[in-house]
Amino acid sequence: MEKKQGDRTYMFANPPALIGAKSVVGPKEAAGPVGQYFDLKIDDPLFGETTAEKAERRFLIEATNATLEGANLAKDQIDFFLAGDLLNQIVSASFTARELRLPFLGLYGACSTMAEGGMLAGFLIDGGFAQNVLVGVSSHYQTAERQFRYPIELNIKHKLSAQYTVTGAGAFLYAKGGDGPYLKGVTVGKVVDYKIKDPSDMGAAMAPAAADTILQHFEDTGREPDYYDLIFTGDLGKVGMQLVNALLEQCGTRLGSNYQDGGVMIFGGDGAFGAGGSGCACSAVITAGYILRELAAGRLKRVLLVGTGALHSPLTWQQGESIPGIAHGIVLER
Amino acid sequence: MEKKQGDRTYMFANPPALIGAKSVVGPKEAAGPVGQYFDLKIDDPLFGETTAEKAERRFLIEATNATLEGANLAKDQIDFFLAGDLLNQIVSASFTARELRLPFLGLYGACSTMAEGGMLAGFLIDGGFAQNVLVGVSSHYQTAERQFRYPIELNIKHKLSAQYTVTGAGAFLYAKGGDGPYLKGVTVGKVVDYKIKDPSDMGAAMAPAAADTILQHFEDTGREPDYYDLIFTGDLGKVGMQLVNALLEQCGTRLGSNYQDGGVMIFGGDGAFGAGGSGCACSAVITAGYILRELAAGRLKRVLLVGTGALHSPLTWQQGESIPGIAHGIVLER
Repeated sequence: MEKKQGDRTYMFANPPALIGAKSVVGPKEAAGPVGQYFDLKIDDPLFGETTAEKAERRFLIEATNATLEGANLAKDQIDFFLAGDLLNQIVSASFTARELRLPFLGLYGACSTMAEGGMLAGFLIDGGFAQNVLVGVSSHYQTAERQFRYPIELNIKHKLSAQYTVTGAGAFLYAKGGDGPYLKGVTVGKVVDYKIKDPSDMGAAMAPAAADTILQHFEDTGREPDYYDLIFTGDLGKVGMQLVNALLEQCGTRLGSNYQDGGVMIFGGDGAFGAGGSGCACSAVITAGYILRELAAGRLKRVLLVGTGALHSPLTWQQGESIPGIAHGIVLER
Repeated sequence: MEKKQGDRTYMFANPPALIGAKSVVGPKEAAGPVGQYFDLKIDDPLFGETTAEKAERRFLIEATNATLEGANLAKDQIDFFLAGDLLNQIVSASFTARELRLPFLGLYGACSTMAEGGMLAGFLIDGGFAQNVLVGVSSHYQTAERQFRYPIELNIKHKLSAQYTVTGAGAFLYAKGGDGPYLKGVTVGKVVDYKIKDPSDMGAAMAPAAADTILQHFEDTGREPDYYDLIFTGDLGKVGMQLVNALLEQCGTRLGSNYQDGGVMIFGGDGAFGAGGSGCACSAVITAGYILRELAAGRLKRVLLVGTGALHSPLTWQQGESIPGIAHGIVLER
């Protein structure tokens, strides 16, 4: 592991393998342009539960259980469960950890949590502390709306720049050894705040952090954007994606057609979803469902995945604060 | 690093040193029985700010800045800032990370967050990924009351089993090399839930997780309770501490006078604080203020610190759920 002082990129000496992953989504995600890639599609957004919060938890339990079953590992072979979500006190993750009864570390990186978890899984495995690390994240349109905005029963009209929280969960099993794809390295994010105050424009709030992490990654590694078949931000949506392009161009870095965003991808151009998808599950289900399949098929070889998170709360917004953003990068290669 | 499958204890090959720490507390904590040990005592719980949330953040910024200044390290020598707090979306930690501009990973372990952060600092340093890791946590009586219970203006009478959230923050600087005390090892917690549903009795909700982690630690290491000069849980309060003793005795393990709890210690026997202190800052300020001073002075040599957290939210309580607990153990030795 080589790293100069001030760098934020860590390339692993023995890159962990991603030996399993599952995506579980609700009906709107299943009907979207990448719907065919998801592992489990649940017609009922409430997943048979009485509340949206219980439903979100159910999505996460399904994703983690399916991942464990797919890998055919016993519970005591899993050294850590790293998880988080958007709900206050990350109760989806904690209550899922209660069911799984695995050693648990709770994370909060808003929608960047999948990348934060992958990063820590890499450190734990390459550092020699773990054989197998399970990472899980979830989000749910109804839980997010009523916690961050308004209960959906009010049928509030959203701004065009607003994003639509993805209903679903993704789980990932990182392991020491095993067939690829491999987690080759990570770039740790810093909090960046360009003083955007509008929670209906979170793509704009997160874009500067995404640009910062992407530039840092290229600086630390000496790579150019065309090293990657896919540079994937998630979840900036249409507005944030444009801003990342603009910010990078100001710094002399131009991303080409290899740049895609999970928030744009999950619902396509459908204006009913505002600027696109968001939520911890957004980048997670696309990674588990689409990116890993494309890596397995050889249609993708090198992917820079940049998980982005908006680190505000309804209360900080009410108190007039701006929305800080963060972005963590993880490199997946065949 | 040796560990059998199913164990949850990791002893570090090259134990990181705790090269700096600071405790910052409000007036009630400063007036308590361990008040003389704290580094910075702030008379005004609002710390000159207009809201309690801004005040909590200010406590955390003070603790982290004082720790960095005390260690005389440049910003770019700090590889990671790991932080969390009790507020929705851990905004105290995230907004502090915005000020510090350090590579940031957000954590949520409720009041166990200091131990969770120390554990990850150990993995990152012993794993060879970091030279210096800063860990910070905070809590505030007023922010916790209004988020988890009722605004303090209502002057609600609390049950005797209820705990009183500590106003303050603690920060810790772990480093590769340096004089001790050393972080010799960690025991990772699992979520344990004995179906306690009363958020005025969180000590009872967390006690089973504390007992589970303590027993696991002894099982994994082959140690007996008298190996340690101090076994410190934080923050169970009087009720939870009694339950830990009772649960351990059922399993044939008896803790002696070397067992203390941060929730009991911080306000002593004063009934005005219910069963004792709580909040992320509770165990953090006692560790930074008291335990590390006693280790430095040689009056303590071996400490097992068990950070405990209640992983519910007001919403899960309203929905009739019980309160899951977690406890992470970290071993500090001279």
